[in-house]
Amino acid sequence: PDESFTLRIRGDAQTDGRFFAGDAEELGVDQLYLRRARVNLQGTLGGRYDFKLMPNFGQGRVEIQDAYLDARFTPALAVQAGKFKVPLGLEWLRSPADLHLVELGLPSALVPRRDVGVMVHGRVAGGRLSYELGAFDGALDGQNADGDATDGKDVAARLFAQPFLSGGGVLRGLGLGLAATWGEESGSLAAPAVASYRSVGGRMVDRLRTGTADSTTVVADGARVRYSPQGYLYSGPASLVAEVVVSTQAVRLGAASADLTAMAWQVVGGYVLTGERATYGRLRPAHPLDGSGGFGAVEVSARYGELRYDDDAFPLFASPTANARRTQAWAVGLSWYPTANVRAMANYERTTFALPDAAGAAAALPSENLILTRFQIAF
Amino acid sequence: PDESFTLRIRGDAQTDGRFFAGDAEELGVDQLYLRRARVNLQGTLGGRYDFKLMPNFGQGRVEIQDAYLDARFTPALAVQAGKFKVPLGLEWLRSPADLHLVELGLPSALVPRRDVGVMVHGRVAGGRLSYELGAFDGALDGQNADGDATDGKDVAARLFAQPFLSGGGVLRGLGLGLAATWGEESGSLAAPAVASYRSVGGRMVDRLRTGTADSTTVVADGARVRYSPQGYLYSGPASLVAEVVVSTQAVRLGAASADLTAMAWQVVGGYVLTGERATYGRLRPAHPLDGSGGFGAVEVSARYGELRYDDDAFPLFASPTANARRTQAWAVGLSWYPTANVRAMANYERTTFALPDAAGAAAALPSENLILTRFQIAF
Amino acid sequence: PDESFTLRIRGDAQTDGRFFAGDAEELGVDQLYLRRARVNLQGTLGGRYDFKLMPNFGQGRVEIQDAYLDARFTPALAVQAGKFKVPLGLEWLRSPADLHLVELGLPSALVPRRDVGVMVHGRVAGGRLSYELGAFDGALDGQNADGDATDGKDVAARLFAQPFLSGGGVLRGLGLGLAATWGEESGSLAAPAVASYRSVGGRMVDRLRTGTADSTTVVADGARVRYSPQGYLYSGPASLVAEVVVSTQAVRLGAASADLTAMAWQVVGGYVLTGERATYGRLRPAHPLDGSGGFGAVEVSARYGELRYDDDAFPLFASPTANARRTQAWAVGLSWYPTANVRAMANYERTTFALPDAAGAAAALPSENLILTRFQIAF
Repeated sequence: PDESFTLRIRGDAQTDGRFFAGDAEELGVDQLYLRRARVNLQGTLGGRYDFKLMPNFGQGRVEIQDAYLDARFTPALAVQAGKFKVPLGLEWLRSPADLHLVELGLPSALVPRRDVGVMVHGRVAGGRLSYELGAFDGALDGQNADGDATDGKDVAARLFAQPFLSGGGVLRGLGLGLAATWGEESGSLAAPAVASYRSVGGRMVDRLRTGTADSTTVVADGARVRYSPQGYLYSGPASLVAEVVVSTQAVRLGAASADLTAMAWQVVGGYVLTGERATYGRLRPAHPLDGSGGFGAVEVSARYGELRYDDDAFPLFASPTANARRTQAWAVGLSWYPTANVRAMANYERTTFALPDAAGAAAALPSENLILTRFQIAF
Repeated sequence: PDESFTLRIRGDAQTDGRFFAGDAEELGVDQLYLRRARVNLQGTLGGRYDFKLMPNFGQGRVEIQDAYLDARFTPALAVQAGKFKVPLGLEWLRSPADLHLVELGLPSALVPRRDVGVMVHGRVAGGRLSYELGAFDGALDGQNADGDATDGKDVAARLFAQPFLSGGGVLRGLGLGLAATWGEESGSLAAPAVASYRSVGGRMVDRLRTGTADSTTVVADGARVRYSPQGYLYSGPASLVAEVVVSTQAVRLGAASADLTAMAWQVVGGYVLTGERATYGRLRPAHPLDGSGGFGAVEVSARYGELRYDDDAFPLFASPTANARRTQAWAVGLSWYPTANVRAMANYERTTFALPDAAGAAAALPSENLILTRFQIAF
Repeated sequence: PDESFTLRIRGDAQTDGRFFAGDAEELGVDQLYLRRARVNLQGTLGGRYDFKLMPNFGQGRVEIQDAYLDARFTPALAVQAGKFKVPLGLEWLRSPADLHLVELGLPSALVPRRDVGVMVHGRVAGGRLSYELGAFDGALDGQNADGDATDGKDVAARLFAQPFLSGGGVLRGLGLGLAATWGEESGSLAAPAVASYRSVGGRMVDRLRTGTADSTTVVADGARVRYSPQGYLYSGPASLVAEVVVSTQAVRLGAASADLTAMAWQVVGGYVLTGERATYGRLRPAHPLDGSGGFGAVEVSARYGELRYDDDAFPLFASPTANARRTQAWAVGLSWYPTANVRAMANYERTTFALPDAAGAAAALPSENLILTRFQIAF
């Protein structure tokens, strides 16, 4: 090409250990695995046309995570087309290399992940307000989409403000946002098009009834609406991120129908013990382990979150003896950053379940105690 | 390596919308999807040894499209080994980022796509004549191959002349060619090794009978020959491309055998409204949309094509009530090129079908009205 | 990143022909295929943190072969985490672009391939001694792993000495090593977790009994131990590589149990007819075919190897009429290197089988005569 052309090649590799502690119930297999292994090709053509191609080779699979064109006409108006993250969940929108903990929390189970669509977006008011507005195929909660099984499409919108970005006070690192999606979804026996939720340990937590006939399978049948108030505060070495996600879907089982709502929220925070400034982006150690005597940075993190499933789902649409009405999870973590690009992590996460039929809890969904480790390089 | 080494990294991403207009018959699902998302690694070692590696991550799948070594001993003699496009169809051999319309036309359904093989090729007479001659595993019509299910191999050859390349007249942009493949194919119940054809909308148009026994399944049994006269004319802002593809395969059904021939042809043309010169390669806007006041280039395109299936196929080898004897398709399209690397497209394509049993047409193969959109970045 | 950052992009493509000679028994399909097509992203961050990401797109599949972080604290101590080659087999640890012959020999069927794990490694004594010590999920013999199906993990260790590395004598290119793995493996009907072995032609050579019930399926049930003495000698244009691999697994079939051992060994050698120095790495032609009159380098190679399966396996754990007690293979090959990055190869390999039930050999495992060709570019 004879136009100006900038290409950046980046990538990351995360090697995780996942161990079930006190695992008398054999909830899962202890293992080492590649959580993510991504090649990231980004560039700019002619000064204003960005592209990104990022396949992920982790977990023994391959998928394209990001593949898009982004035409930045002005800072306030850009048009993006391709496959990318749906602008809804705050934790989900952050790079997985920079999160407080190894795995995403409960609210991220309720947001659509990556989807194919077209989106206008931009920043106004000196960067203090950003917006996204797009149309997408309509991925299910917690799922990616490479196409659609139904004609209906989803609209997603998000507003995010950093009102004190240009100031110097304690609220300089404050961000507050509101995001939502709207759409219609009509499922079928072959593709029910309803969401189900799993724990961090990979166990099914909430699932609507499925069978071999229309009369025994819950299918989507009407409006799907999600919304999410969200915010963060970064102040010196401390950080706090909070979000709520509410997801409602009209469903039908034979002649019965209902609007079922799942709600999740969490608060996650961190503190950099070595004193570096915490940011939404990459943490940069003041004294990296590079042979000059530094040791890098150390951060502690903690999270608490809940997922509440609609009481109206039980017993008609979901089994009261196999699904959680309330899931609670807390986690603590330690991160060591020898350099800005390398990170070693250890987390402990405990998840407990309350079932509609209290007696069923111990048998169907025993508490989950998970030890997670990670060796990460992100360049 | 201590040799001279040139590496070029390129890629493209195409985000398509596909909508069935007036779709009372529910012929397909309206959707957005990644048509192609490709990373393209090309280079030259020691001045004469080229390589190319190009995986495609589009449509929720991954496959290597091109992977080859090309040893250019002289301009007239190069040896290429690996997986690459079989030199047969003219439209198929062009980069999909530069085609007149969003999707390939009917003749491209009859040509083998990418195959593994070894090929000699070169240019003689000052570039006015180019040739390709290769041996391949033998992909089916419209299919890619990563290996072979039968011992038989295919030979492919193509001659293409640009007789007035060095002149200055109206025929400077004229190209004429002839290509063919020869091979033997012996199918089996498990792998019948016979071609079937689909419409642009993805619906099956022609398919030979398949069953659960040898006596009810049509299999390849002998010579497969394809040939294709082809040509183009590029003149100022106008372009015209025409090709015919004929594909004949000896088949057998129990004791009955026949040589079945499918034939397709099309004419496709374009006109650049903003006056830039049309070429076989990339269109370059004279005034790109880069903030300096330009708007880019605009091109209109149109296509008409037909696919004729062998009358002898009916009713013994193919059902006369479910397959088209003649398929006709016309399409119109509009392309906007803000820059040479970015393209937005909208197409309308209508396909109609004539069945041997005329009464069956409406029910089995209703007319298809397709609206196709594309956002493309190719760098 | 603001740290020092070095990125190297490399890759290779191997286009192979595989032909069964005198193949009256139809042992396999003659075909051309992409044996490997790999993109290799390697780099160093901050001077001491290496990464590698290498997906392979060959054989119509995609998998990540290498994906790791390697933190080199000192030459004697590095920590590597991710997916990479298990440090056991000598032939297996070499780059497939540099091997004497097209395909790996029999000992490589007994070593775990790539696995996910964490490993310390380094070089001491001026590079004369290198070591690796790691923990891995525990891949089966001849297999890759992206995770684990059982809680047990494997430990692997390897010592390799080049005692005369700094001298100038004939033993300068001598290397001797010893490697081993230890672990526990407990299989099940769904995942028996026992190894099976195939010939270079892809035919099953040794397989334990599998059925539809616990009582008819052999499963792993206890210690798995492998060890491998290994060595090479490179001297001028000549090279000789030898290794033995012994793999023992405790197995169970219903109430019966046993420790079954497979053993394989081979000697492979080469001689560069054009006189260049043979090395463990890439052969560099003194006079490459680059238009300056050179023709490149030519090397001849030969191999003999055996695989012996445990007599105790027959007849209880493995069928004596379908599995080989002893497999013998010899191969000869010719390689032409027009340049250091391009290689054309032709091999002939003959494999014969001795069954416990001698009468069964001809029918179940006829001798295999394989002609293998390769066009390779590795940059």
